[in-house]
Amino acid sequence: MRHLTATQIARLLDVDRTARPYYRALAQAVRGLIRDGQIPVHVRMPAERHLAETLQVSRTTVTAAYDQLREQGYLGSRQGSGSWTSLPDPATTSDNPWLSVDDDGLLQLHCAAPPATSRLQPAMVAAVEDVPRYAMGTGYDPMGLPHLRERIAARYTERGLATRPEQILVTTGSQHAIQLVMSLLVGQGDPVIVESPTYPHAIDVARQHGARIVPVGISQEGWQLDLVSAAMRQSGARMAYLMPDFNNPTGALMDDATRAAIVGEARRSDTILLIDETWAELAMDEVPRTAAMAAFDTDSRVISIGSASKLWWGGLRIGWVRTTAALARRLAVQRSAVDIASPVLEQLVVARLFDEFAQTRAERSRTLRASRDALVAALREHLPEWSFSVPRGGGTLWIRLDRGGATPLAEAAAHHGVRLAPGPWFGVDGALEGYLRLPFTQPPQVLAEGVAKIAEARRRGPVGPRPTGASLIPTV
Amino acid sequence: MRHLTATQIARLLDVDRTARPYYRALAQAVRGLIRDGQIPVHVRMPAERHLAETLQVSRTTVTAAYDQLREQGYLGSRQGSGSWTSLPDPATTSDNPWLSVDDDGLLQLHCAAPPATSRLQPAMVAAVEDVPRYAMGTGYDPMGLPHLRERIAARYTERGLATRPEQILVTTGSQHAIQLVMSLLVGQGDPVIVESPTYPHAIDVARQHGARIVPVGISQEGWQLDLVSAAMRQSGARMAYLMPDFNNPTGALMDDATRAAIVGEARRSDTILLIDETWAELAMDEVPRTAAMAAFDTDSRVISIGSASKLWWGGLRIGWVRTTAALARRLAVQRSAVDIASPVLEQLVVARLFDEFAQTRAERSRTLRASRDALVAALREHLPEWSFSVPRGGGTLWIRLDRGGATPLAEAAAHHGVRLAPGPWFGVDGALEGYLRLPFTQPPQVLAEGVAKIAEARRRGPVGPRPTGASLIPTV
Repeated sequence: MRHLTATQIARLLDVDRTARPYYRALAQAVRGLIRDGQIPVHVRMPAERHLAETLQVSRTTVTAAYDQLREQGYLGSRQGSGSWTSLPDPATTSDNPWLSVDDDGLLQLHCAAPPATSRLQPAMVAAVEDVPRYAMGTGYDPMGLPHLRERIAARYTERGLATRPEQILVTTGSQHAIQLVMSLLVGQGDPVIVESPTYPHAIDVARQHGARIVPVGISQEGWQLDLVSAAMRQSGARMAYLMPDFNNPTGALMDDATRAAIVGEARRSDTILLIDETWAELAMDEVPRTAAMAAFDTDSRVISIGSASKLWWGGLRIGWVRTTAALARRLAVQRSAVDIASPVLEQLVVARLFDEFAQTRAERSRTLRASRDALVAALREHLPEWSFSVPRGGGTLWIRLDRGGATPLAEAAAHHGVRLAPGPWFGVDGALEGYLRLPFTQPPQVLAEGVAKIAEARRRGPVGPRPTGASLIPTV
Repeated sequence: MRHLTATQIARLLDVDRTARPYYRALAQAVRGLIRDGQIPVHVRMPAERHLAETLQVSRTTVTAAYDQLREQGYLGSRQGSGSWTSLPDPATTSDNPWLSVDDDGLLQLHCAAPPATSRLQPAMVAAVEDVPRYAMGTGYDPMGLPHLRERIAARYTERGLATRPEQILVTTGSQHAIQLVMSLLVGQGDPVIVESPTYPHAIDVARQHGARIVPVGISQEGWQLDLVSAAMRQSGARMAYLMPDFNNPTGALMDDATRAAIVGEARRSDTILLIDETWAELAMDEVPRTAAMAAFDTDSRVISIGSASKLWWGGLRIGWVRTTAALARRLAVQRSAVDIASPVLEQLVVARLFDEFAQTRAERSRTLRASRDALVAALREHLPEWSFSVPRGGGTLWIRLDRGGATPLAEAAAHHGVRLAPGPWFGVDGALEGYLRLPFTQPPQVLAEGVAKIAEARRRGPVGPRPTGASLIPTV
């Protein structure tokens, strides 16, 4: 996205009209939108005159607000090209923000990975019996075992999206799927749209391939179609990486009308849609029935990604891509330079796990709901100042802090025994500092304990010896 | 390598001194060396005068030979900068040479992947029992399970190379290990030395990261130290990817003196040595005891790669990197954008398989020896014109054809039911057309049948309908 209209800004703003001086309230609101990633960095703001007209305030008020934003480093100006959003001190994070302390008894609340389903062990026992059929072969099937691809395709069809096994490529986890797709389709300098906030390691991959990241702000309530459309058109986006089915971290669910409109817009701007459905099967409450994003596709521009990690277990490292048979094959060729093929036994385990798909899903739904409710209750008790919407699916709560930044809070929390994922990990340019993601993929008592420690960290700040070492557990 | 001295050329040449006209024999010999990758493409040849002196022939003879090579496209000249080796028609291979027909009953003799060890199934049964210990966790350990890393480190120590578990990173196969290391350490335009011939998918990875590939010819008898050294110095190589322990495809084994000298040279030219030991445990005969390449390392420039694929099974997709603890950790961070971590169950299976390491190794050695001997016997019977050295380790035979190219032979063989890996797949710039790699990782009767079909293909050329479809089975 390169510019925002006055109308778009006005709709995003939530300013108390009675605040005095009003210009300061206006500046604060814009600052908040930039920090929260609702307004991306490097976007041109509307001319003062236009914004004044739209907000029905005096031009002097807007000028004063812009001046203050400029002073504080949230706006930059270039002669003759208006004002651009920026951040005062782009968080100069250390080498890799996904590293933090480990093996020191910290609660891992920076990671949204549920423990293994109870059905895992029996499925493994059964799968081992299936191995001898493959043991005389090379063990390499870059597309994935046909038997598993059939199961995956059948599940898409059951969801209402007719799918043939040839359209499925089995990958070594959904991260690997993102890697393969971007490696093939994203080149140096290509604009790639991501939601802000979004899944961090997808941004890593896009950056690795030299993409220009174009963030589009979304809120817990979801996507604003005109922002997504404008970003696609203005950036000439090569690809948009979206999570319409319980966005990680917000848990937002895209409605059918928005899905249809975004696919239509992608068609017009010739943008590939990479749709990450890692959390798609993880609804906890009754949600409106939505069609898979690919159901609105008419010209093969929607590539879907799925995963065994959330429903069954991340330790399986099995994911998949659904696309055209031709592209699935090209991706399989691509992986000869990455990992050649996925492990046979894990694929057989996942094929077995599909046998009890509905039951596992119901079970996960119950467990996640109990954990979510426990987390919500603990937060309301210990940290009532924090605000959030309660998501109906996914595995994470996206919390708006009342004051202070999430990064110092995470630092303090580590001293109190909890590892956190502060908002900026889910955005670009250091935005989202006013947010914190908390997963509810752990058991209720762990979450209650975690929240108590976080509240203490917030009250007391960093105390005692700083935990040493660094964790390699990813922020999934 | 940028130039070859007259002495180096002279040593490589094998010209019948009585041949007339001698210049033609000389040209033919040089042509052979270029086609076979012994002399890389784009290397400056010595001045005619120098070569004449060294060969003790008249300058006219060398001039005539160079002229013929130039006419045939094996030499290019640029004003004032001498003559450069080239190839007449750089094999413009189709999209990906690793694809060929599949699922049509062809024997897969393009792939050197043994079937699973008989010990696999019991190890899997046992490993499933180990899973519950991990099932409450995230399942993500980017470094690899400590238990497996201990087993791998212990095996290095047993081989005479003291190793701590912190120095080991478990990967999703050795291809993935190559990918991670090059991704971290090789940048756009960096010179990377590879043996010619070498493992093809390593070249793929280097290319993907924008490396400039610098091939160094090796023969079945092995490495010529001064060629490797000259290539390192002249190219300013960032990295050299070498397989001293049964090079794939030649089966050559590097002696200790050469190992020490190459590590020393790498130190002087500040070249990282990426040592692929995928085949290191697969000796079939008594071989001289050699130390691991890393045993000669004094300043942490040797990175070793190992794999479970050849000893146990490729379908496991488990490999590893041995390096410094610090670099192992950086590689683990790197993989957050690739595959996050390796599957837990497969790691537990490999840890179990280490329990019977010596027995499995002896078993594999016997099986490979029987298959190798069957392949050698079949070739001597059906194709006595072909020449090769019998390797004492590894899983492949590197065959020199008596006439014709390997690519048309592979094409004809596909018509006769066998998929082959022609020489150019193992080199760069289309060299090595006079060679063919045959694996002996399949049972003796399969190999005997395969050779009979190849002999028929050679006699009759392509016949009948051309097989359709394309295989994704990699050329490992």
